[in-house]
Amino acid sequence: MNDTDSGRPLARMFRPRSVALVGASGRADSAMARPMRYLAEHGFQGEIYPVNPNYDELGGKPCYASLKSVPAPVDLVMVMVPAAQAAQTIRDAGAAGAVAAIVFASGFAETGATGAALQDELVAAGREAGVRVLGPNCQGVLFTPIGLSATFTAAADRPLVFKRGGGAYVGQSGAVGGSILDLSMEMGLGLTAWVSTGNQADLELYEVADELLEEPEVRFLMLYVESIGDGHVYERLARKAQELAKPIVLLQSGRSEAGRRAAASHTGAMLSESIAFTLVSQKYGVTLVNDISELLSVAAVLSATPVVAGRRMGVVTTSGGAGSLAADQCEAHAITLPELGEPTQALLAPMIPAFGALANPVDVTAQLFNQSGNPFGRVCQIVADDPAIDAVAVLLTMVTGKAGAELADGIVETAAALSKPVLVAWLAGRELTEEGRQIFRAAGVPVFHSVGELTRAAALIMPAAPAEPSPGEPASVGEVDLPPLGDLLASAGADGGQALLDAIGIRRPASALVTDGAQAQQAVAAMQSAAAMKLQAGTLAHKSDVGGVRLSVNADQAAAVFDELMAAAVHHGVDADGVLVQEMIAPGVELIVATTAARDGFPPVITVGFGGITTEIYRDVASGLAPVAPDEAYRMLRSLRAWPLLAGYRGAVACDVEAVVDAVVRVSHVAVAAGEQLAEFEINPLIVAARGEGVTAVDVLVQLAP
Amino acid sequence: MNDTDSGRPLARMFRPRSVALVGASGRADSAMARPMRYLAEHGFQGEIYPVNPNYDELGGKPCYASLKSVPAPVDLVMVMVPAAQAAQTIRDAGAAGAVAAIVFASGFAETGATGAALQDELVAAGREAGVRVLGPNCQGVLFTPIGLSATFTAAADRPLVFKRGGGAYVGQSGAVGGSILDLSMEMGLGLTAWVSTGNQADLELYEVADELLEEPEVRFLMLYVESIGDGHVYERLARKAQELAKPIVLLQSGRSEAGRRAAASHTGAMLSESIAFTLVSQKYGVTLVNDISELLSVAAVLSATPVVAGRRMGVVTTSGGAGSLAADQCEAHAITLPELGEPTQALLAPMIPAFGALANPVDVTAQLFNQSGNPFGRVCQIVADDPAIDAVAVLLTMVTGKAGAELADGIVETAAALSKPVLVAWLAGRELTEEGRQIFRAAGVPVFHSVGELTRAAALIMPAAPAEPSPGEPASVGEVDLPPLGDLLASAGADGGQALLDAIGIRRPASALVTDGAQAQQAVAAMQSAAAMKLQAGTLAHKSDVGGVRLSVNADQAAAVFDELMAAAVHHGVDADGVLVQEMIAPGVELIVATTAARDGFPPVITVGFGGITTEIYRDVASGLAPVAPDEAYRMLRSLRAWPLLAGYRGAVACDVEAVVDAVVRVSHVAVAAGEQLAEFEINPLIVAARGEGVTAVDVLVQLAP
Repeated sequence: MNDTDSGRPLARMFRPRSVALVGASGRADSAMARPMRYLAEHGFQGEIYPVNPNYDELGGKPCYASLKSVPAPVDLVMVMVPAAQAAQTIRDAGAAGAVAAIVFASGFAETGATGAALQDELVAAGREAGVRVLGPNCQGVLFTPIGLSATFTAAADRPLVFKRGGGAYVGQSGAVGGSILDLSMEMGLGLTAWVSTGNQADLELYEVADELLEEPEVRFLMLYVESIGDGHVYERLARKAQELAKPIVLLQSGRSEAGRRAAASHTGAMLSESIAFTLVSQKYGVTLVNDISELLSVAAVLSATPVVAGRRMGVVTTSGGAGSLAADQCEAHAITLPELGEPTQALLAPMIPAFGALANPVDVTAQLFNQSGNPFGRVCQIVADDPAIDAVAVLLTMVTGKAGAELADGIVETAAALSKPVLVAWLAGRELTEEGRQIFRAAGVPVFHSVGELTRAAALIMPAAPAEPSPGEPASVGEVDLPPLGDLLASAGADGGQALLDAIGIRRPASALVTDGAQAQQAVAAMQSAAAMKLQAGTLAHKSDVGGVRLSVNADQAAAVFDELMAAAVHHGVDADGVLVQEMIAPGVELIVATTAARDGFPPVITVGFGGITTEIYRDVASGLAPVAPDEAYRMLRSLRAWPLLAGYRGAVACDVEAVVDAVVRVSHVAVAAGEQLAEFEINPLIVAARGEGVTAVDVLVQLAP
Repeated sequence: MNDTDSGRPLARMFRPRSVALVGASGRADSAMARPMRYLAEHGFQGEIYPVNPNYDELGGKPCYASLKSVPAPVDLVMVMVPAAQAAQTIRDAGAAGAVAAIVFASGFAETGATGAALQDELVAAGREAGVRVLGPNCQGVLFTPIGLSATFTAAADRPLVFKRGGGAYVGQSGAVGGSILDLSMEMGLGLTAWVSTGNQADLELYEVADELLEEPEVRFLMLYVESIGDGHVYERLARKAQELAKPIVLLQSGRSEAGRRAAASHTGAMLSESIAFTLVSQKYGVTLVNDISELLSVAAVLSATPVVAGRRMGVVTTSGGAGSLAADQCEAHAITLPELGEPTQALLAPMIPAFGALANPVDVTAQLFNQSGNPFGRVCQIVADDPAIDAVAVLLTMVTGKAGAELADGIVETAAALSKPVLVAWLAGRELTEEGRQIFRAAGVPVFHSVGELTRAAALIMPAAPAEPSPGEPASVGEVDLPPLGDLLASAGADGGQALLDAIGIRRPASALVTDGAQAQQAVAAMQSAAAMKLQAGTLAHKSDVGGVRLSVNADQAAAVFDELMAAAVHHGVDADGVLVQEMIAPGVELIVATTAARDGFPPVITVGFGGITTEIYRDVASGLAPVAPDEAYRMLRSLRAWPLLAGYRGAVACDVEAVVDAVVRVSHVAVAAGEQLAEFEINPLIVAARGEGVTAVDVLVQLAP
């Protein structure tokens, strides 16, 4: 079947029938000599056409003066000429029938305005000629099933391992990609495909990744991204991967800058773009990692065993000390080491002497090795068969040379028959253990160099701990029927969002916006109790910072307080609309409920948490993608560390959790309905009364998008 | 000089003039053949006497029928006979003049009662004969300066690296020790000494470590401990190491429940104890690590550069992506990447093209390598010379082969002349980079295999961030003059610690212990305001859990409330002494101040933190070793996350921090004065009023030691 006819022209970039190398070099020390050599060494199965007017022959093949003189159609062109000549080469590639071209040269947008103009020309040339462009300033493509090595990375200068159903790497950075390729090969981790996207003038990372998901030989994706990019595109990719059951593990860099940006802003900005990215990733099961080594660790586990059911580890060790260290570290990563069941311990008992340990960690002691057959593998098997165990960690210390190799053989034999992953940490140098390591590598059993590395990989690959059973069903919230929000949003700046709260059915205290002292006195007098008085200004996020909040005001104090508040506004340069007089609400648990708008293709985010200092200092908040369903809102509440305060702490009365759930759901629907019109919508505090007595939005902040 | 005459007989264990191997084997496959072979291979500089009646000769040396027949004095005896014969061999060793014996055999206390009896006999034999015993069930000793390899660990079956002024390892576990030895050698980390202490029947880890501190060739200690042991001994060791400027890095296992199960060390290490251990470690600059790999990483940095001044990292990278990942991870470990100064950037600018980066991380780009001399080393030098930088992280990607070796040469040359550490992460497999790695190893420049490993090592070795400048001087607290506490403690159970508070000068609310309703009414009527009423029972830690606290009680409610509280006590099976009637205190910031007693040789611990939910859920507390000085108490307060609440949060009034400091100091002195008499002394809440208005201990709990 012809892929280009199937509506997937990009498939041809990975499986070209022929490649041309324009600007291929004959100088052995030139990076531009490498692709030609790599294609030969890695056994590329298609036609190879070097193009360079300075040579008649290169690498034993006829060399052509130009693309035009190549005698047959070309599917893929490697553009190895300087930046200024690249656009013309792309046009020639189109004429030669190419579907894609890879531009290695730097000197484009990354260098300034002149380079950016060259890059624009390159993209235009590609569009005109019907050629998709990878790069420029990229390191190219590997596709190991057919030996395609269209790259100059030094990391390809070695035999490449290809294993059926392996992973594919896509990333912008050639340098990081080179490291990942080299380290993958050292680990014996077969890669099906490897792509460096460089400046991404045309082909972007997610599009390339999307194409690779279609490739049967690709079973999982390893992505390295330097910018999050478009949320719609990312979400589509993540959803497709989930549907195809091809896991994604993703390493993102540049987060610390974003972290500083967020920290510099006020409370609401905690709901940033990167939270939406994290939530979308979680939703579709993308594993996010923090380091190249973690990316590789997770990939190693994925290539051995795609699914791990839970976070319960069985540890089998040749050293009690190493087992103890592993137990400590598992605990720190929320991995449990359940005590093994009676039947399991009964099976282990005859194999392990009294001074060993059966419970988990299982310390086999050196005596095990005197038994015939595959005693260590048998122990692993017994532990893995315990229904309380989701994965087995094997810790080996100085079992070296021949003994180590035999042990590796036994573990490999056992692991092959298990549906649970077997992860090995071999705490010994390579010199004395290379034979055994080679056996593990060949079998695809992941071998980590430390207990910490193994534990971190397991923690990443294991699913989040299941929520504790719920003490009561979450509130049932029917269809949320919101009125058109246009007018309400427009007026929110003036009335502080009060009408919006009424429209979406969230209770607020009786209140009145007053603009002079007499009105203030009248308003307070009309209330049942003393009042709170607060400066009202559309742009003022933290009223108390400017002395803009006064509590327990009586009618006869009201006029004076009004004057003081307005004076404070003038003093702080706040353009106040007046003063909000509000009925005082009985104390209760104080929450914050906030959203930030859809942005950059990512859905809006809804956040709920404990108000006041617990938001600002302890950051006890949980976020979800808007809209949230009631059970999801409930799970968010349950995940708060201070959940006991809502549930009824130390004999205190339980709070109206159902009313909180209802409010969270409603606010999340506002965020969706308002779309990008709304920058921020925050209720703080939402005071929660006892069960059955509802919630009250005491203060609300609405900010419209600029 | 004769060490045994210098009052340090143990020194002879590491530098014996002669060793005897009792039970040495001639069978090549026997573990008990190894020590003889290792001594020869590692070039032991003393006399070697194999002892075994079954051989006339072993390893080219005459073999003796018994220790008695050895013709010259023996300093050190390796006991390689079965458990049952070990005690007799120790006696013979004494007769032969030995100062120490190493018992390899297992079958002692670790196997049960029979073995324990054998172990007791062994210890007694050693005492009688004047022979210190290492083991049993241990793997022995290495002392590389004289080629002493008195061990059978497989990890010694290779050339051992010795570097002047290297580290010494001491640990109980032979298996963990073997791994550490082997991995040290692979890293090129020279070890001066290596000791496995096994069952520690006589010689314990800290004593061996103490002796090694005296050894001039030992510059730092690597300890692996499975139980914390005696606090006095540990503290003495840590203090001595600090005085000698020989750092200790310590790996402790068994901190989790499953970990203790694995280590089978029933230390019963409780929270307080391990806090005391951590605090003592911090006090003397012991670096605590969580994994063998971290132990080795820190050791690698220590052997290159013993002192790092601060937490400010300069990053030099061949890949912008890798630099970005490092920046993210440094931030996560509280390591800052300050922007490099103008003069530094001016020096770098001519070397790095416009599309590189100068600020930090410094992205050198490939173009740097076209420059002659040692351009990369020069960049590292310039960055290290910036006064804002404490350490330099060098991130290398696919710089391979000859180019990698040249780069390594350049970095090594630069690093040798710097007083700041240069840490390298080489993100490439060994195959293409072995030549360069060898250069780094030989020069002792630490090379990490991932950005994460480098960052974790740096985070461990860098000193804690200096405290922010203080906004005002901490309270000055003079000599704390406490009355004799004996009677006060004894009465604390009855009066709830009220007299103790008065004695140490911490204010409490007016209160009265009442035992019937009429007394209750009278007591409340005598107070200025409404009262709090609380069940009084010596053993009741959390009164509100049993409904034992009622607030805002008026005089006419008091009798009824009394009855309700006593009924609640009966209901919950609490043996109440009566009800405490207390004046209500104006609300303020609520703290907890608590101590736990001295235990197992560790000093008492004083803890201060935010009360209520912030203690229970957010654990916002800080601890110190009692007694604390005022400036230390102040630093503890400053380290609390919710410190802003005390300092005056959002324009609120600042609290009386000086009064808190005073109270913390006083409570810490109570803990010291009471010694092991007091199990626990807790004020919760300590209500803090505005500056100048003091603190009030509203509730106090005193528990005496059983």
